[in-house]
Amino acid sequence: MAKLYHVPLSPFCRKVRLSLAEKKIECELVEEKYWEKDPDFLRRNPAAKVPVLKIDGRTMAESAAICEYIEEKYPEPPLMPRSSEARYEVRRLVGWFDDKFHNEVTSKLLYERVNKKVTKAGFPDSGNVKAGAKAIKYHLDYMAWLLDHRRWLAGDTMTLADFAAAAHLSSLDYIRDVDWNRSEAVKDWYAKIKSRPAFRSILADQVPGFPQPPHYADLDF
Amino acid sequence: MAKLYHVPLSPFCRKVRLSLAEKKIECELVEEKYWEKDPDFLRRNPAAKVPVLKIDGRTMAESAAICEYIEEKYPEPPLMPRSSEARYEVRRLVGWFDDKFHNEVTSKLLYERVNKKVTKAGFPDSGNVKAGAKAIKYHLDYMAWLLDHRRWLAGDTMTLADFAAAAHLSSLDYIRDVDWNRSEAVKDWYAKIKSRPAFRSILADQVPGFPQPPHYADLDF
Repeated sequence: MAKLYHVPLSPFCRKVRLSLAEKKIECELVEEKYWEKDPDFLRRNPAAKVPVLKIDGRTMAESAAICEYIEEKYPEPPLMPRSSEARYEVRRLVGWFDDKFHNEVTSKLLYERVNKKVTKAGFPDSGNVKAGAKAIKYHLDYMAWLLDHRRWLAGDTMTLADFAAAAHLSSLDYIRDVDWNRSEAVKDWYAKIKSRPAFRSILADQVPGFPQPPHYADLDF
Repeated sequence: MAKLYHVPLSPFCRKVRLSLAEKKIECELVEEKYWEKDPDFLRRNPAAKVPVLKIDGRTMAESAAICEYIEEKYPEPPLMPRSSEARYEVRRLVGWFDDKFHNEVTSKLLYERVNKKVTKAGFPDSGNVKAGAKAIKYHLDYMAWLLDHRRWLAGDTMTLADFAAAAHLSSLDYIRDVDWNRSEAVKDWYAKIKSRPAFRSILADQVPGFPQPPHYADLDF
């Protein structure tokens, strides 16, 4: 069975968990306190980051590379479209969320509020939190604009781009940092993706010191 | 003809330039002062970043997504191996350089020394420069370790992983921040990649205010 070293609220781990679950690949989850730099973990990934996935007799790091590998080896159901043009759009959006959204929003809200406390790295920087709270509005508006002429973020089928976006938003939703009233289109999109069986494990996550808000796992939020 | 909006020392632009040149795709280079946020440029890429590539009647952003697209549409000569396992390794290393190396080295040396001056964003932070100068040693050692049992970074053929790494190192070499005496293996690898025709345009780059050092374009440095 596959084994994923992860932390529950990491969007990069969640993207991999969603891909594995959608493709019905059974996977044991192992929480890894990567910031403690355990020598065994550093051997598995010298970059000292999660996710790290053991699958097919190999140990893999870097969530984008892992998801492309899963897609190539376990193509059903597909999370990438067929044409190069459509595949480009999926990868562009995965990059948008894992790079731009991550830097402007996730690192400024989730990392300040949760990671700093969990890793005992100090108190949230209020300037960062304020900047993150401002930036997420712009990103939600961008998603609303995309969803205005598409069923899913990258086109008419659900893809890895939706999982990348949902991974970030679900982690921020856990700490009540998403204003779902900002866009009906984004809310409907999230309700659709949240109700997929692949999302169940993510909705069951519990982080000590950060109780799950009541709406988080509610499919009719 | 394709058109690339870029800045000369951006490693992300250089990776795309190397891919295009290796595949002999003709491309006009247009310098884009992305930090001035020209409305026309923002229309081309709302993320306000370079590279932006116009090709096949489309406008594309995000260097990783662009390179995968080029590879799919223009497969010869290949910059990705065939097997999913080998492709994973290429993508892992592209992620290593564009994420980890970028954060720990490029942003701390190149961005402090060059980008801050060019964009009039202040003076280099000496703490960052010191951290970058320390981190690059560790990365060169990691490359030496990889090259100890491989001809190229990801295996026995030259791939996108080599271009990603060479893109970062060549930009840092332009500002004399690479100690080529640290590893014979890395120096040999760079000499091999530097002497490819695809590298010529990069070796011809000139940045006002930052004269090219004599060894930079020397193939027998």
